[in-house]
Amino acid sequence: MTPSFEALQKQLKKLPGIGYRSSERMAIHLLLEKPESCQALINALEGARKNVSSCQCCGNICESELCSICENGRRLETGQVCVVEHVSDLLSLEKSGAYGGAYHVLHGKLSPINGVGPEDLNIESLLKRAEQGNVEELILALPNDIEGEATCHYLIDLLEPFSINVSRIGFGLPSGGSVIYADAVTLRSALEARLKF
Amino acid sequence: MTPSFEALQKQLKKLPGIGYRSSERMAIHLLLEKPESCQALINALEGARKNVSSCQCCGNICESELCSICENGRRLETGQVCVVEHVSDLLSLEKSGAYGGAYHVLHGKLSPINGVGPEDLNIESLLKRAEQGNVEELILALPNDIEGEATCHYLIDLLEPFSINVSRIGFGLPSGGSVIYADAVTLRSALEARLKF
Repeated sequence: MTPSFEALQKQLKKLPGIGYRSSERMAIHLLLEKPESCQALINALEGARKNVSSCQCCGNICESELCSICENGRRLETGQVCVVEHVSDLLSLEKSGAYGGAYHVLHGKLSPINGVGPEDLNIESLLKRAEQGNVEELILALPNDIEGEATCHYLIDLLEPFSINVSRIGFGLPSGGSVIYADAVTLRSALEARLKF
Repeated sequence: MTPSFEALQKQLKKLPGIGYRSSERMAIHLLLEKPESCQALINALEGARKNVSSCQCCGNICESELCSICENGRRLETGQVCVVEHVSDLLSLEKSGAYGGAYHVLHGKLSPINGVGPEDLNIESLLKRAEQGNVEELILALPNDIEGEATCHYLIDLLEPFSINVSRIGFGLPSGGSVIYADAVTLRSALEARLKF
């Protein structure tokens, strides 16, 4: 282990989902096994750092002031805004093709234990969008946990003055799931979210 | 998704053990969630790329001509050379504290299916070390699979003229393992490797 190697490993270990062993393996791969990929990664990082920014309207990734979704008139016209925790949630919803409205990315959820308050989230620009009157329906697609729940309640209280229809995405059995493998919280949500056949 | 974002994701996906979802999450983390870590990673990559190279003697990572192990006279004096597949194997053995000799890293194993032949491995410098007469015992610490086996046999044939003691690390039940959970190959190896009590 050399100082530069350890410095690289330390930075790689900070990436989400990467532990000590993975970072070691990645560093060895970049330096010894595929040294040409090291320069390619540096170039990609520098290019993305220079070009990619956060959409001023919704918080999605973009390479200009607005992201491709916020620039798309047809998607804004729906009046629907889907609130998600992370850009990756937005990308998942986009890939599903199930949604045709606009988004708003909070970049996190309220978590007093981890010191995340409303000022740390991308909430101010959501309020601005509500004030401008472009939001008819707000669909909360936040996680089904205590922090997601708390964030939903905070947003509902905050947006009360604007008479916006607020809904939350359904919870229940995933596609292909069976009752036997579902945990208690999922089953409780599924029972509460039952729909008439 | 923007072009620079996709270019970065593509490079991250090439890292070992990283799939599509992980690379997406890592790219979002680097660009939006922790933008300061992006520059830190670029600096670490550039520093490591500039400073870290392969030890000319054994193939370990180093920041000069020889790695710290090959520079250590006491470790060379043992006459023991442990042959490993990857630098990460070397690091694991070093962390265990169980070995005090020198190493030789092949940077792979023979694998005709994947087009890896002897000329793709760090074998020539092992031959040079054997010719110089500094190797008394060669300990093969290669994986317990067909390719590892083939690499062992290739090296044994190659080093026959040098009258070096060649051994292979033991195979069997891992520490804390019990017979009931061991697979057939492990049990076969363990029976073959039995020692008198």
